[in-house]
Amino acid sequence: MSINPSHQIAFKRFRLTIAYDGTNYAGWQVQPNGLAVQQVIEEAIERVGGMRTKLHGSGRTDRGVHAVGQVAHSDLPAHIPAHGWQRALNAILPPDIRIMKLVQAKGDFHARKSAIGKEYRYFVWNSTVMPPYRRLYALHIPDKLDIDAMRAAGQQLTGKHDFAAFTANPNRIVESTVRTVYSLDVRRRGCELILVVKGEGFLYKMVRSLAGYLVKVGLGRLPRDGAEKILLSRQRTALVETAPSHGLFLWRVSY
Amino acid sequence: MSINPSHQIAFKRFRLTIAYDGTNYAGWQVQPNGLAVQQVIEEAIERVGGMRTKLHGSGRTDRGVHAVGQVAHSDLPAHIPAHGWQRALNAILPPDIRIMKLVQAKGDFHARKSAIGKEYRYFVWNSTVMPPYRRLYALHIPDKLDIDAMRAAGQQLTGKHDFAAFTANPNRIVESTVRTVYSLDVRRRGCELILVVKGEGFLYKMVRSLAGYLVKVGLGRLPRDGAEKILLSRQRTALVETAPSHGLFLWRVSY
Repeated sequence: MSINPSHQIAFKRFRLTIAYDGTNYAGWQVQPNGLAVQQVIEEAIERVGGMRTKLHGSGRTDRGVHAVGQVAHSDLPAHIPAHGWQRALNAILPPDIRIMKLVQAKGDFHARKSAIGKEYRYFVWNSTVMPPYRRLYALHIPDKLDIDAMRAAGQQLTGKHDFAAFTANPNRIVESTVRTVYSLDVRRRGCELILVVKGEGFLYKMVRSLAGYLVKVGLGRLPRDGAEKILLSRQRTALVETAPSHGLFLWRVSY
Repeated sequence: MSINPSHQIAFKRFRLTIAYDGTNYAGWQVQPNGLAVQQVIEEAIERVGGMRTKLHGSGRTDRGVHAVGQVAHSDLPAHIPAHGWQRALNAILPPDIRIMKLVQAKGDFHARKSAIGKEYRYFVWNSTVMPPYRRLYALHIPDKLDIDAMRAAGQQLTGKHDFAAFTANPNRIVESTVRTVYSLDVRRRGCELILVVKGEGFLYKMVRSLAGYLVKVGLGRLPRDGAEKILLSRQRTALVETAPSHGLFLWRVSY
């Protein structure tokens, strides 16, 4: 617990697990064009707590990307208990943003820096017609996907690699484009394929690039064993497309 | 195949299986207030076939109710084959309405009169917080529901009964309020309960009244064995509430 000396208000650090339907948002982080999820929650916190408080997410999600388990931390006035914060925020927030969990955290917990891994899931509806109730949450691919080819390609993309060829903007300043993908599974559930990607961390648009690449392999437009060569090139190529945002969910953040 | 003598155009009867997200529609049937699903499809047929053709549904669904397997028939110009009609209509229709299947039918097939049964499903999310991606498709009940009590009550509502107490407007002119419910199951899938109701046919708002009643039983606000008495009263009572439309799906029509 820390004390703000000017107001004599005690703060505690809380950890929030947040789900959102990204359809109507410009992404997680506050930015000039359109409404950000972070901003909507910060405004709700201000209405409940009476003061503006910064919300720190585990990382950004792009415009239109959904979350089942985004994690954030914030130092909130301590006189409201965790369950009170959760209830009050959910009463104010629009129904496409929900605080699924809100607990007190250790004072040094940091949603981004403390994270040790992330899981994303990319949903593909693989049948002739896209049912209306899935249209906002899955990519529609009418032609049959070869799941074995996709799994084989996924194997080559697993492990520690330089993913410069699988990020949208290789000129963006990052310390390194080397990342470790712990696993990349392709699951089938009825007509739906689910790409489950777990990793230490991901580059900008990396998961959607992996998904776009795997879909092309599944359609037979790319060989199943070409990923290694693309990785080694370290160059973004037209072979790697960025899959649309509405199929992607930030599923879980591990600490 | 029938011939329209004035235009010398041949027509064939087709059977359409239709899915829709009811969120933005005033229901299935054309009506003064708001856009109807039927109307949107009839307009798409007109654009493809060049003439207005009536679409006959298996029955109405109310404002906001969804469908996975609504069935309709229509006599369409025969020079376009079934798969051509399906593809052309889906290319024109908004993504919240989809023709899941379109096949030629016998000339005497009638979506409403030939139906021998219907299945509806009502979805209830039974956990403290409603996840955003289910908010449009399930009723949120935060308090724990007693599934055994709901199943017991469902048993009493199964079979041939006078359902006057479970229809919204008992003064509406219908030949009879006697209906046969073949089965009423309560299934659990994670945090979600699914009320699966199969019957010969249903009265106006009957499925939502059954759902509203069962939820009250599940919450312990009504006894599990009171349905028989309510049925025998043949009077709508405050005990029976109409559950909101967004949890309801017309699932299947049997022929």
